[in-house]
Amino acid sequence: MRRTIISTMMMPACLFLLVITQAHAQTSPLPSWNDGKAKQSVIDFVKRVTTKGGKEFVPVAERIAVFDNDGTLWAEQPMYFQLAFALDRVKVLASQHPEWQDKEPFASLIKGDVKGVLAGGEKALVEIIMATHAGTTTEEFDNIVRDWLASAKHPKTGRPYNEMIYQPMVELLRYLRANGFKTYIVSGGGVEFMRPWVEKAYGIPPEQVVGSTIKTKFDMRDGKPVILRLAEIDFIDDKEGKPVAINKFIGRRPIFAFGNSDGDHEMLLWTAAGRGPRFMGIVHHTDAEREWAYDRKSSVGRLDKTLDEATAKRWTVVDMKKDWKRVFAFDK
Amino acid sequence: MRRTIISTMMMPACLFLLVITQAHAQTSPLPSWNDGKAKQSVIDFVKRVTTKGGKEFVPVAERIAVFDNDGTLWAEQPMYFQLAFALDRVKVLASQHPEWQDKEPFASLIKGDVKGVLAGGEKALVEIIMATHAGTTTEEFDNIVRDWLASAKHPKTGRPYNEMIYQPMVELLRYLRANGFKTYIVSGGGVEFMRPWVEKAYGIPPEQVVGSTIKTKFDMRDGKPVILRLAEIDFIDDKEGKPVAINKFIGRRPIFAFGNSDGDHEMLLWTAAGRGPRFMGIVHHTDAEREWAYDRKSSVGRLDKTLDEATAKRWTVVDMKKDWKRVFAFDK
Repeated sequence: MRRTIISTMMMPACLFLLVITQAHAQTSPLPSWNDGKAKQSVIDFVKRVTTKGGKEFVPVAERIAVFDNDGTLWAEQPMYFQLAFALDRVKVLASQHPEWQDKEPFASLIKGDVKGVLAGGEKALVEIIMATHAGTTTEEFDNIVRDWLASAKHPKTGRPYNEMIYQPMVELLRYLRANGFKTYIVSGGGVEFMRPWVEKAYGIPPEQVVGSTIKTKFDMRDGKPVILRLAEIDFIDDKEGKPVAINKFIGRRPIFAFGNSDGDHEMLLWTAAGRGPRFMGIVHHTDAEREWAYDRKSSVGRLDKTLDEATAKRWTVVDMKKDWKRVFAFDK
Repeated sequence: MRRTIISTMMMPACLFLLVITQAHAQTSPLPSWNDGKAKQSVIDFVKRVTTKGGKEFVPVAERIAVFDNDGTLWAEQPMYFQLAFALDRVKVLASQHPEWQDKEPFASLIKGDVKGVLAGGEKALVEIIMATHAGTTTEEFDNIVRDWLASAKHPKTGRPYNEMIYQPMVELLRYLRANGFKTYIVSGGGVEFMRPWVEKAYGIPPEQVVGSTIKTKFDMRDGKPVILRLAEIDFIDDKEGKPVAINKFIGRRPIFAFGNSDGDHEMLLWTAAGRGPRFMGIVHHTDAEREWAYDRKSSVGRLDKTLDEATAKRWTVVDMKKDWKRVFAFDK
């Protein structure tokens, strides 16, 4: 009993020191961001919702922040990285599928003709995704993704794909979490393609990854339960699918959302329409030198109506070239 | 800088005091449990996985615990409480549906003939669920559930349904969380039927509720985004659906699982088949006086093959009558 009394008496001192440490750590958040409107809008928002007694204070439990992945947390050029994975995977699997030599879209792909593959449109892509993402257990697929990341290199930088993550966004995620936010990915990418690596890359655990899914099935194999990945789309987490998935998986409306393309439009609208303080942000790809410059006319990550909306509604638009000191951690 | 040094120097003292406080709080966990094998098995397991340097230590991030809801965290007799909600809802909606007077299963239900309704089997139930759970926005449905809980009373105890929660299980959830576990509900019940009340009842936030879902759709209504609940089943989170949903929503295999019926069999198997220490528990309804006594032959919450399996594999079987000092918080 005496010990409890002592510890209770000491508690205010401990809390006081913790507060000081935290305050100190917060004097220089977001080191890879240049000073400017974008950085300041983030810091101001966090201050408003975390100031106890302030009229815009938001309890910790409600500090939900959602981030698109492709083009928002990591790069997406010259093609979505998950597509690069699928194309590499077709090559690996080709020896087990002699029929692919004469069958599109596989025949073009095996010859290295990516343009021929993409000419097949969405149907071709779905066929490739199903052939490369299904037919394994969930554990096997997890290992396949890890192995690919350990060997594949990005065609422009020569870096592993999981190093093509935006250092300023990694800092933003960390800064939000240090201020009591729960950070989620809400991506059109496959959940099980992301989960093996996002925890290390972004500090986001598997249970905070929302994405597209294929159907799966519980089965017993040699007396051991497994989950099999089936060649059937379950849910596409893009556009109007994003608020639907946020509602289904998280069950709370975010107060903070970041995207980079028209695929994030509905997620941003859904976030904006809640009560109380809101933050909506867009990563605008403006840096042809350190990354890529693209927006309204890009086939990957098109940012058109959402850029107009962001401007009209004064959402935060990050000008990558101007606002970021560094893009990738491996930049000088 | 000086402040940081001071706080760093003081940190070990703070941590030491926190440890003492925690150790003290842990001397009497689970006050509503009688001493015995069931209680001891929980305490032993938690000690094994939280002992630093121990060979069975599990990092905090992997301490995932999943709980069935109906019959495991709250009662489920004389019928699933969500069904009671649906039946009450039919009565409320009947005035807007004159055609229900002559249409089964609604006609029986409006007359108060629940047996007649149940005679219609699963088809009748699905019709009732769709008529009562769809056709609103998610926000409207949230309010409907809250209003029902505020007025409806359990037929046997006269208590609000959200007071029919098992006090020993509430303590178990709290004890696990105090030891770094993340506690989830994985229930056959509807996610959006549970989310409005489980945080207050169990301390489980909306984003840690996995359950059955109907399809939903994003829409704009008077310029405002809404999510509409559609009259179409999306996913039934029962039996082999439970491991599938755990994989999809959580993306980690639990190390701790608690259920009470054959609907939890696959979830328990999936938990048991992981590497390292595992805890599988069953609530066995043996207390006809304070609660209900039922198992192998019950139409609600049947516990048959899972009871055999639990015995054979030495999973923890909680004998409600023997192991629990109190069942509900309102018991003496």
